[in-house]
Amino acid sequence: MTATLAHQLTGQMIIAGSPVSGTGAEIRGFDPAAGQPLEPAYRHGDSADVEAAAAAAAAAFPVYRATTSEQRAQFLEAIAARIEAVKETLIARAVAESGLPQARITGEVGRTTGQLRLFAEVLREGSWNGARIDNALPDRAPLPRPDIRQRFIPLGPVAVFSASNFPLAFSVAGGDTASALAAGCPVVVKGHDAHPGTSEIVARAITEAVAESGLPAGTFSLLFGTGQKLGIALVTDPRIKAVGFTGSRTGGTALVAAAAARPEPIPVYAEMSSINPVFLLDGALSTRGAELGKAFIGSLTMGSGQFCTNPGLVIAVDGPGLDAFVAAAREAVSAAPATPMLTPNIAGSYASGVESLAAAAELVARGVEGSETCGQAALFTTDAKSFLASEDLQAEVFGASSLIVRCADAAEVAVVAQGIEGQLTATVHADDSDGDAARELLPLLELKAGRILFNGWPTGVEVCHAMVHGGPFPATSDSRTTSVGARAIERFLRPVAYQDVPKALLPSAIADGNPEQIWRRIDGRLSQD
Amino acid sequence: MTATLAHQLTGQMIIAGSPVSGTGAEIRGFDPAAGQPLEPAYRHGDSADVEAAAAAAAAAFPVYRATTSEQRAQFLEAIAARIEAVKETLIARAVAESGLPQARITGEVGRTTGQLRLFAEVLREGSWNGARIDNALPDRAPLPRPDIRQRFIPLGPVAVFSASNFPLAFSVAGGDTASALAAGCPVVVKGHDAHPGTSEIVARAITEAVAESGLPAGTFSLLFGTGQKLGIALVTDPRIKAVGFTGSRTGGTALVAAAAARPEPIPVYAEMSSINPVFLLDGALSTRGAELGKAFIGSLTMGSGQFCTNPGLVIAVDGPGLDAFVAAAREAVSAAPATPMLTPNIAGSYASGVESLAAAAELVARGVEGSETCGQAALFTTDAKSFLASEDLQAEVFGASSLIVRCADAAEVAVVAQGIEGQLTATVHADDSDGDAARELLPLLELKAGRILFNGWPTGVEVCHAMVHGGPFPATSDSRTTSVGARAIERFLRPVAYQDVPKALLPSAIADGNPEQIWRRIDGRLSQD
Repeated sequence: MTATLAHQLTGQMIIAGSPVSGTGAEIRGFDPAAGQPLEPAYRHGDSADVEAAAAAAAAAFPVYRATTSEQRAQFLEAIAARIEAVKETLIARAVAESGLPQARITGEVGRTTGQLRLFAEVLREGSWNGARIDNALPDRAPLPRPDIRQRFIPLGPVAVFSASNFPLAFSVAGGDTASALAAGCPVVVKGHDAHPGTSEIVARAITEAVAESGLPAGTFSLLFGTGQKLGIALVTDPRIKAVGFTGSRTGGTALVAAAAARPEPIPVYAEMSSINPVFLLDGALSTRGAELGKAFIGSLTMGSGQFCTNPGLVIAVDGPGLDAFVAAAREAVSAAPATPMLTPNIAGSYASGVESLAAAAELVARGVEGSETCGQAALFTTDAKSFLASEDLQAEVFGASSLIVRCADAAEVAVVAQGIEGQLTATVHADDSDGDAARELLPLLELKAGRILFNGWPTGVEVCHAMVHGGPFPATSDSRTTSVGARAIERFLRPVAYQDVPKALLPSAIADGNPEQIWRRIDGRLSQD
Repeated sequence: MTATLAHQLTGQMIIAGSPVSGTGAEIRGFDPAAGQPLEPAYRHGDSADVEAAAAAAAAAFPVYRATTSEQRAQFLEAIAARIEAVKETLIARAVAESGLPQARITGEVGRTTGQLRLFAEVLREGSWNGARIDNALPDRAPLPRPDIRQRFIPLGPVAVFSASNFPLAFSVAGGDTASALAAGCPVVVKGHDAHPGTSEIVARAITEAVAESGLPAGTFSLLFGTGQKLGIALVTDPRIKAVGFTGSRTGGTALVAAAAARPEPIPVYAEMSSINPVFLLDGALSTRGAELGKAFIGSLTMGSGQFCTNPGLVIAVDGPGLDAFVAAAREAVSAAPATPMLTPNIAGSYASGVESLAAAAELVARGVEGSETCGQAALFTTDAKSFLASEDLQAEVFGASSLIVRCADAAEVAVVAQGIEGQLTATVHADDSDGDAARELLPLLELKAGRILFNGWPTGVEVCHAMVHGGPFPATSDSRTTSVGARAIERFLRPVAYQDVPKALLPSAIADGNPEQIWRRIDGRLSQD
């Protein structure tokens, strides 16, 4: 299959390398900018498709997991190259299906291929093996110590649920897929109904890379279907051993419950819900309240506010600095144009979320009004007591809406910080004069968020070694991990110990002489020997 | 409080440093060797005790987690020293309460203090911090990269459920407690009804170490109660953030379900059920079948077979080698004396488990008969098809009972290996001539067990850096971790990212200049700089 063929969309799913037509509900990409459905039509798959994809993934697993780190690194790079080869077609389709600006989607292609290449680098570096060797102590009394070695192995086939808001970077070849494939796990993706064409183009790129790399066809499949039906069938299939998900709290908790109810429970990594509190400290407010207010609306309205890390909550002590912040934010939000949201459904949910806020908080300003499929920015304010007493005010509203919580003093700011649910991010704006206040706030935020950032905005998640895109429930279903960055591979691995295993049988990561030339922990000490 | 005071048992729980009398059912240690209940009486706690212990743990958490690695290392060493100071009293009481031989309990004291000291070493080495630094790239286009750093922080207060079969090493100051305290998590232990006196002595040692180390009293509490009532209250308390458990499949899955049903679900590390298959390959059987049969019964009957890693299943191809193994095993098991089991309940469960096996498999031999509170060894045999068709034959029987599965050929051995549930261990006996067979078997076993060992017996779990005491469900509820060995600390940690956090506020593990002199990952590369 050549790269050019990938341009012709077929409206099919791909199961283990073969195009398969769904038999369920018809879905189409919808261009929110044009207000038009897109060709071709796709159809949802059914339980037979789940069966076929899971069986192929299970059959592929022993072969795929036996590949070397270098082989998988090259495979990930081949996927990236294939995506780049169809970049123009892909960007055009993703822009049409998402309504997101071309520059944003272009950046997202780079992020997607960058993620794949980061995991290639992680594979080659080799620490992902978690290699440990405790040498035998044959003369130890009262009992000799055997030779014990440890390495990580992949969990098995992984189900990945695509996100609506990152049609590339958290979709078919997104972070979950890249990290699971890196770990040695075959992947079955449930594509998002919002961008089936984008999904097909990327799935073909992966499928071509699978074939080119000589891997079993079952290493990758793409299905379409509802979360409730096909999604649950996938998560409860006994051959699926872990799940990656980015989406709503309702959807995520349903998958978590289904996975926990299996005869053999499996881990679910669901990235779900976060309002990303921003704390404005007194010094920062007094020196640059207006400037912060304007920048805040820039972060809030970017991509129609459709980021998991969108700043949906601002917390500060009442006073002239906050007044200046609010005034500047009011001006900026009032001028914010209505921009297309990802799908009519999401636009509808956003509108009703804003209505809930409007019923419980005071309006600061709305953005410019637009069509039904666009999001109209919204900014509200309330006091700390009302905020803490209201579930509605604490719920995520997916879109360009935010709430400013006015506190009486720093003590009340701390009470709000302790009262909020788990978050992906917590942001602090602080000047040098805010040192003591920041020092007191930081430990509270550590317990609430996966990422703490100072003097910036939470939108924009760097893909790197130190990133944490995670956090306590309900930000995610498993705070012990991250879905962005190098550590994401660890979600799909488990350790195995090898005791007195004959040298000829030892996997190379823990073999004598360190044939892979990787960092290993020898008798408790890191070593490259 | 001096070490000598710890000798006088009070029959009380300890909540945040204070003795508290339970108000529920009376429990007593029971000396299975003497067939006698022991003084003093203890009583179960209630929900008010859970409330008090959880509140104290939550209050202690911010202070305790702010201690340095060195402070926690010294605290763990202080616990070990306090345990050693009451060693004689402790050993006498644990022997009386468990019916286990003095040599075994003496060894277990060493293992318990050894675990505490291993985690002190892990803390000082510092890799537990998971420190990562991605330096800022201010000139990167199109957008500069911020400074992003990552470290692990503790999850919060941990509930630990003591095991019956390791009254020291997996009880009040056992592996779960040691690893949780090392991580910076306060611990609330639910002591096991089978050894309340042992629990009190150890809890006092910890309490003394808490005071001596200047830590908040709520860092540690000991409660007694049923799993169904006090245990569930503990696991569902919103202040408890993780659970360690060693016990039955029924008990473990109940706690997992309770934790999953919380408004904020939390991780449960339950080590539950394993029959620890032993594969005898043809070469090994033909050269040393009889020798293996005798050694097998030694492992099977050690400690009345009350090990999580007891070899409850033997799998081999039928033939003269296996006949020799069975003959030697028959002789050894017939001569095995009946030995006390931990509690009358456990002895009763063992007897009915053996009855289930007897109804479904062919008896090879029983050990010498003993009193009701003793375990009488039992060995059965069956064919592969019967084994795979029977849930009873695959269920764990806790005690000195095992089942030999006779296979027609190597292909049938592979089918059995693929058909079994998840295990803590899988053992292979192989000679040089078995290389090909072992090479084919190994990848199947990797998917089924946390530890694979060759030419040894699974009983005896080394406490070291490379150990994995874990494995796929139902061996544990979370195969991604281990409950024995250095990695156990990772169960109670989660990563946090710090983006552009002012240098003065950075935790020392990720501060400039590496003040803790630990290994860190800088821009993706391990470094001590």
